[in-house]
Amino acid sequence: MVSGGGHRAVARCEALGRAPYSDMDGGLYRGWLSPAHRASVAQVAAWMADAGMATRIDGAGNLIGRYEGTGDGPPLLIASHIDSVRDGGFYDGPLGVMLGVECVAALHEAGRRMPFPIEVIAFGDEEGSRFPAAMLTSKALAGVLDQVPEMADASGVSLRAAMAEWSLAPEGLLAARHPGALAYLEAHIEQGPVLEAEGLALGVVTGIAAQLRYEVVVQGLAGHAGTCAMPLRRDALAGTAEMILAIERIAGADASDLVATVGRIEALPGAANVIPGEVRFTIDVRAGEAARRDRAAKAILAEIAAIAARRGLVLNHRLIHDLPPSPCDPALMDLLEAALVATGHPPRRLVSGAGHDAMIMAALCPTAMLFIRCRDGVSHNPAEHVEPADAQAALAVMLGFIENLGASCA
Amino acid sequence: MVSGGGHRAVARCEALGRAPYSDMDGGLYRGWLSPAHRASVAQVAAWMADAGMATRIDGAGNLIGRYEGTGDGPPLLIASHIDSVRDGGFYDGPLGVMLGVECVAALHEAGRRMPFPIEVIAFGDEEGSRFPAAMLTSKALAGVLDQVPEMADASGVSLRAAMAEWSLAPEGLLAARHPGALAYLEAHIEQGPVLEAEGLALGVVTGIAAQLRYEVVVQGLAGHAGTCAMPLRRDALAGTAEMILAIERIAGADASDLVATVGRIEALPGAANVIPGEVRFTIDVRAGEAARRDRAAKAILAEIAAIAARRGLVLNHRLIHDLPPSPCDPALMDLLEAALVATGHPPRRLVSGAGHDAMIMAALCPTAMLFIRCRDGVSHNPAEHVEPADAQAALAVMLGFIENLGASCA
Repeated sequence: MVSGGGHRAVARCEALGRAPYSDMDGGLYRGWLSPAHRASVAQVAAWMADAGMATRIDGAGNLIGRYEGTGDGPPLLIASHIDSVRDGGFYDGPLGVMLGVECVAALHEAGRRMPFPIEVIAFGDEEGSRFPAAMLTSKALAGVLDQVPEMADASGVSLRAAMAEWSLAPEGLLAARHPGALAYLEAHIEQGPVLEAEGLALGVVTGIAAQLRYEVVVQGLAGHAGTCAMPLRRDALAGTAEMILAIERIAGADASDLVATVGRIEALPGAANVIPGEVRFTIDVRAGEAARRDRAAKAILAEIAAIAARRGLVLNHRLIHDLPPSPCDPALMDLLEAALVATGHPPRRLVSGAGHDAMIMAALCPTAMLFIRCRDGVSHNPAEHVEPADAQAALAVMLGFIENLGASCA
Repeated sequence: MVSGGGHRAVARCEALGRAPYSDMDGGLYRGWLSPAHRASVAQVAAWMADAGMATRIDGAGNLIGRYEGTGDGPPLLIASHIDSVRDGGFYDGPLGVMLGVECVAALHEAGRRMPFPIEVIAFGDEEGSRFPAAMLTSKALAGVLDQVPEMADASGVSLRAAMAEWSLAPEGLLAARHPGALAYLEAHIEQGPVLEAEGLALGVVTGIAAQLRYEVVVQGLAGHAGTCAMPLRRDALAGTAEMILAIERIAGADASDLVATVGRIEALPGAANVIPGEVRFTIDVRAGEAARRDRAAKAILAEIAAIAARRGLVLNHRLIHDLPPSPCDPALMDLLEAALVATGHPPRRLVSGAGHDAMIMAALCPTAMLFIRCRDGVSHNPAEHVEPADAQAALAVMLGFIENLGASCA
């Protein structure tokens, strides 16, 4: 292993956080196919070349560095994305790419070739950082795009025009389909507080959570805040408050990876001196297993219906989002966990509540993900922080995983 | 009593709900000093004259009809307002004026004079129906205005220009101060559901409730709805939900006239997939007695602070409104209650949670108010409804009150 490769990966993420690698002043924003993206691709390609890789840009604008193996079978892909939300942090995405580069750099420095090629991929669009759709470039590479999406960015620049700026044909999105891979490995900051709370640097991701999202409307009776006695009220907001606590209680009682959130709420008419007659809110429920998610959602819907009935409120809900779970490959999880344990870490497994390129890539090949602790669980924010020592630990585990995969192929 | 005077009062309110007495098509809106207000003043003045009153318009645009008594001491004032909120109901305000006209009509028809003059007043502005201030005309008449307010309506017309349209000098607002009154009586729809819920047509108002209003800010920690485990959250909205239920519980446990309302709420950042990091809401607390109001407010503030502390949330509150109670006169309440009982009604007393001209007039003379049941407690809405029989019952009680007042002056 390159001494301090994890530290160098972190330093490189920081270096990519400034001009010319950012599209905004005083912070990091890197949109797909933007000037900052182009500059970043050039820099990362140089680092890949230093690490012994041959680089190319595919039809979707993904940067791919290839390190040949002793055999020419399908490659191991090590990837993440290098686009960034507006005013984001340095590590969400780039750290996984930089650690991939460090894996190859370590093999290259040691003069080692694995039985399989390794391709390190810097995806161009995971966040939906510029166009109103996310993960377009991993979709292109996984071959799950049926057609070229017709859309424009906030400035009115079409996707076709943006691709032309890079001398990419729109149909390149369809041609970018990868011919096939042995496995996919992605390291990513957790973007949550779980590992930190348990004093752990790393965790093996079991998959991307199954997700349900509802829009709920509670109707009561608006009334004058001064003239309507308490027992005569049908206060839609007080009823909603009871529902929010029930949702929190049901999710909390499931001591697994289940989470449920009310993120948006609107009370009407919204005046300090009027009892709310209507409240609209969202419920987001996620769990690693669809069955657990569905059990919780069913319990929540039953409980809030009972609360509404008891209070004389009318409740309507509508399912607006149903995302199936995307489990990681059990055999790869075992290989990753073995590497974790071999480097002295407890074998913690956890679900990813957020989406990642890995969930798209599962259509192409078996996937594995390694989560890295980040400070306070903060992400999508300039305060995003990763300890270099944690990145170093992640690098060691990834190298262990590569060795384990090599041994399993033997 | 004029046979069916209460029915006629209701019919006249309805008649005033249409052109030319409304400033909007397809509904009722009557702004102070508007064309509809002017037409209404002309019509009501004609009804006053029919009832034997001499009419005048004071410096604030209030219509005053005077029915002389056997003595020329200070008059009994019977009043309410004839302005209306946009798309309002027919009865909020006008019914009290029409019933005052019917009181005098009944005396006039019977050829009776009381020991005191009676003045029936149609206030021009109680609702703040046109300019951004309420109860300006009763303030003018009660003599509590220090200066002419400088303000404009939503169309940019200044108060001074609006008064000039009526050939009123702005200083008329100060000159409108009444020389002194024996007592003030106002009949008004309850604008709440209490009387209806108890099967009562009428109630004696004990005063205008004391009111406190707070703005509260709860700060937690925003986080990804998918990645932050339930036990690690500091969800500002879940905390606020617990606070809203505590407020409802504390107000409900006080089985008096106390009410507390959270009418406005905003959760930030307000996305379905983000745990709310900050919530802002209002608390409105009202009770007939300031001491009871203050006890409840203190209990509420202590309880929400405890909830915030237990959940690791930061709580800040700010008092934005502190209205002292405006009690009605105990002796006049007794006279009104005696009239209520004499006409076969239970002696129900209740506080007014909403403000009325009576609270301003208390600066000039002792006040009494009679509440009339309205359907479903609905007001400020075209669905506002009063049963003519209830208005008839109110008229009988008001006439009884006048007789009782006459007897007490003898």
